[in-house]
Amino acid sequence: MSVTDLLAQLAPIGLTAGGGYRRFTWTPEYAGLRQWFLYQAEARQLQVVKDANANLWAYMGDPEGAEIVAVGSHLDSVPDGGAFDGPLGIASAFAALDLLAQRGLRPQRPIAVVAFTEEEGARFGVACLGSRLLAGAIDPERARALTDAKGVSLKEAMLEAGEDPSRLGADPSLLARLDTYVELHIEQGRGLIDLGQPVAIGSEIWPHGRWRIDFPGTADHAGTTRMRDRDDPMARFAATVVRVFDAAQSDSTRATFGRIEVTPNSTNAIPSLVTAWLDARAATDGALESVVASAGSDVTMTAESVTRRVEFDPDLRDRLAGLLGGVPQLPTAAGHDAGVLSEAGVSSAMLFVRNPTGVSHSPAEHANAEDCIAGTESLARVLTDLGGFH
Amino acid sequence: MSVTDLLAQLAPIGLTAGGGYRRFTWTPEYAGLRQWFLYQAEARQLQVVKDANANLWAYMGDPEGAEIVAVGSHLDSVPDGGAFDGPLGIASAFAALDLLAQRGLRPQRPIAVVAFTEEEGARFGVACLGSRLLAGAIDPERARALTDAKGVSLKEAMLEAGEDPSRLGADPSLLARLDTYVELHIEQGRGLIDLGQPVAIGSEIWPHGRWRIDFPGTADHAGTTRMRDRDDPMARFAATVVRVFDAAQSDSTRATFGRIEVTPNSTNAIPSLVTAWLDARAATDGALESVVASAGSDVTMTAESVTRRVEFDPDLRDRLAGLLGGVPQLPTAAGHDAGVLSEAGVSSAMLFVRNPTGVSHSPAEHANAEDCIAGTESLARVLTDLGGFH
Repeated sequence: MSVTDLLAQLAPIGLTAGGGYRRFTWTPEYAGLRQWFLYQAEARQLQVVKDANANLWAYMGDPEGAEIVAVGSHLDSVPDGGAFDGPLGIASAFAALDLLAQRGLRPQRPIAVVAFTEEEGARFGVACLGSRLLAGAIDPERARALTDAKGVSLKEAMLEAGEDPSRLGADPSLLARLDTYVELHIEQGRGLIDLGQPVAIGSEIWPHGRWRIDFPGTADHAGTTRMRDRDDPMARFAATVVRVFDAAQSDSTRATFGRIEVTPNSTNAIPSLVTAWLDARAATDGALESVVASAGSDVTMTAESVTRRVEFDPDLRDRLAGLLGGVPQLPTAAGHDAGVLSEAGVSSAMLFVRNPTGVSHSPAEHANAEDCIAGTESLARVLTDLGGFH
Repeated sequence: MSVTDLLAQLAPIGLTAGGGYRRFTWTPEYAGLRQWFLYQAEARQLQVVKDANANLWAYMGDPEGAEIVAVGSHLDSVPDGGAFDGPLGIASAFAALDLLAQRGLRPQRPIAVVAFTEEEGARFGVACLGSRLLAGAIDPERARALTDAKGVSLKEAMLEAGEDPSRLGADPSLLARLDTYVELHIEQGRGLIDLGQPVAIGSEIWPHGRWRIDFPGTADHAGTTRMRDRDDPMARFAATVVRVFDAAQSDSTRATFGRIEVTPNSTNAIPSLVTAWLDARAATDGALESVVASAGSDVTMTAESVTRRVEFDPDLRDRLAGLLGGVPQLPTAAGHDAGVLSEAGVSSAMLFVRNPTGVSHSPAEHANAEDCIAGTESLARVLTDLGGFH
């Protein structure tokens, strides 16, 4: 089946009136996406194993074997995200296996298509949660206690979805058997547009992180409290946003305040609390620290997740570059499960597919059918080599 | 029954874990508050009439009579508000009638205790909605279409609560029969603390209003979008907050951004829209205009409610001052139903009771029992005179 036909099957799930997707983990929409994954695995006679962290693995060959070559991505989305971020990597993985099957090829090593959970961190606030848990990069107790915007914990949400949160945590045996992970992903910037190319190899992931900043204040009446008597956290929040944006104006830094929660969020009450999340990224660890420091020393910042610079395995990149000919290599400022696994010692790589709008995490995110097909063909070529298809 | 005993009966309704109150109109909590009102009316053999706008009137004497003297306030609260803002005016009204009954006095004119709906505008965004509708100061079609934070319209919420939204609108007959309205209210600032007095007469209400400001932007990925390629509404919002606060620093102006809604409100997405509500107040119409204008000409502002300066009836104030002796007169920067009725031609007055914290719209709002009793005694003295109790 073609990658575009596979994506078309997913198109209705979690679609909102504005044309974006809301596919949060452990919701009914997410169950539909996982059902689709199970169906695709069954149709290809792949054996599905759910790991301790509820990531789904569809195996061609022995799930208990060594030197597994995995390809995949994630099915969850940001709020009002696009159709490609995540699903393209899984649809192209199944489609690449179909191309190899049409060519009568079988692998010499176990091949897996994987769907990692909560990659976006859109529901529980920690990105790449499924791969971080697998890699032992987050304490499972902390993960179970993460809460969504309504106060529902990951533990509660998993139980509600019929999953077992008690098994969450590092899986060194699976990690040790995982030889290589290749994640194909929609490009999230304008790199391939500028180069006029459909596909790139990922070179590195910028250091990045999320910091929660709490601005406590004193609730009071919006009319009767003199300005000089106020302890208004909105004033401090606004000044901080201005300061951080000023500090992050270069092309090698990014700063975003995309999520704000105001308590009590009432027009005629001075807030008692403004909580803001700073998403910061930079080309170097030093530049990242400098953007974060610009928020000021007088605010309470909590690092919810910080990821150091990840350079993807240079040997693997060379091998992919050889296989794919004159494909460019591009860094990304977005975090990915491939970065988490790379840090955990799994040789990892990424392929990016051109996004003609340059926009992602938005309904405007897009990939042309031809570019999706070109990406799938590249992935099939990589799989042929890494998996020893013959 | 004493005013403190009456307030104690209301204490459990809508109490939240933080010690504040959530008493939004047409919720189960609000039904409980209205049930209490009906019970208090029945216990005193007052005849309850629900007007076309669902305001509750408990009459001593003929509900169809002329020259009604009304006392009261509202039962709804802001989110996480205090126990006194609103209920104190109604509890003190019932308690004042009890004092007069104990003294064996009966009125010569119809007396009403009134509970206006949606005074805070906390659910549907327009303050003093019940009195504005009665006075014809808001179009009933617009009122029915007002929505709460979840998109539920006033019409739907009223139907859900068993109320009839089709009758909303001006009631000139009731207005014409309403001779005088006196609203006792917790003071919302530090005026009475500074003066060392338990009770004041309201002199005027500052001009004030609420403006919704929409900052549209372009949703995009927080990591991969260069700062110079962004159309980030959070940057424009923060700059606007800084500018407006700068413009409103004098003691005769107020500016508050207490309510913010971010779309999609995701940590790793540049928002597509930030909507902020500006609550602005000032001692003069000119100063108010100047604060609002400081938001800038390049933003989309929608005035949701604007109230001009209201000076309470000088003759009525003189009469109250005579009755209550050396009681101070204080202006307020908070809107009240008494202001709306005053604008509609009803001779209106307010009594303020000292708030030892100076804080309101917060769980910290307070009034000592002695001051509540002093306020009730003042109200009883005013009622005796205005109602011709003998």
